Amino acid sequence: MKEIMAIVRINMMNQTKKALAEAGISSITARDALGRGKGLVDLTLLEGAEKGYEEAVVQLGQTQRLVPKRVFFVVVPDRLVQKTVNTIIKVNRSGKSGDGKIFVMPVRDAVRVRTGESGDQVLDEV
Amino acid sequence: MKEIMAIVRINMMNQTKKALAEAGISSITARDALGRGKGLVDLTLLEGAEKGYEEAVVQLGQTQRLVPKRVFFVVVPDRLVQKTVNTIIKVNRSGKSGDGKIFVMPVRDAVRVRTGESGDQVLDEV
Amino acid sequence: MKEIMAIVRINMMNQTKKALAEAGISSITARDALGRGKGLVDLTLLEGAEKGYEEAVVQLGQTQRLVPKRVFFVVVPDRLVQKTVNTIIKVNRSGKSGDGKIFVMPVRDAVRVRTGESGDQVLDEV
Repeated sequence: MKEIMAIVRINMMNQTKKALAEAGISSITARDALGRGKGLVDLTLLEGAEKGYEEAVVQLGQTQRLVPKRVFFVVVPDRLVQKTVNTIIKVNRSGKSGDGKIFVMPVRDAVRVRTGESGDQVLDEV
Repeated sequence: MKEIMAIVRINMMNQTKKALAEAGISSITARDALGRGKGLVDLTLLEGAEKGYEEAVVQLGQTQRLVPKRVFFVVVPDRLVQKTVNTIIKVNRSGKSGDGKIFVMPVRDAVRVRTGESGDQVLDEV
Repeated sequence: MKEIMAIVRINMMNQTKKALAEAGISSITARDALGRGKGLVDLTLLEGAEKGYEEAVVQLGQTQRLVPKRVFFVVVPDRLVQKTVNTIIKVNRSGKSGDGKIFVMPVRDAVRVRTGESGDQVLDEV
């Protein structure tokens, strides 16, 4: 199984979650805010800008190539890795810089607390 | 060494931390809020519901199988993986759906910034 | 490629980001708050203490070896792992307990959403 961690535009998060659910990929997911860019962005600024604080927006405007992002992850069986990646790409590709990135990381095992069972059967699937 | 990432019920977090500490597992730990469920849950709703906002609670109520969760991770030596998993299970198993999940991920190395030393000795243990 | 996850003192975050950028390491980065210590620290307390709430500070003061921290990660090509670790150490080593820890985790692949390209070329470098 693999953990797929993706960084996408903030306003694409809901569409991405919906597309993944429709594709039958609905395992564990986490979200987080982060900044990205050559200059490594200050999160507090990002959050301020998202809330519309003038000062934060101005400061952000002075940062090069700033792209506010959301990061989320989902753990899927190996056979669903490509489908998951393709689904995320399909929804998020605009062709413009800042469409995001996807990382695939190894996962050794998963355990369901309720039953103690482990392996791919623990991951939710359609 | 392994990173053990666990998703548990929000109200089980303190007991889980305490049980891990008592078991001698007190290495690095992070916490985060996330939603889980077939429908992939909106975090803002979760946070709103946690704070008791009526509207968020109502909207959450319309989502299927919603289970508000906390996610945390701990990095342990290989020989403590099973003990860590067992401790998390012992505390969190109620037998009901939503008890949570545990993921075991590989970690190549750990480095202590102060000394530059690496390997298992960097991980806190009793 | 590897994910390098580092836990550093809260007040060292900006210097660390700057040093990494100067070293040409400016790939994806996330930040998060977490507590660390033998007793596993309550994040709410940490946040309260950071904001200066008296009660949180008092409660934190009763916890042994509490070290408020920031966690961030960066994904780099294998050939930049050592440089990244060294840069983080150089900035964060004070010689006192609580300087932080660095974890190196395997990453199978990275995909750029805009182009679909994968591999090291996806990771930003100078």
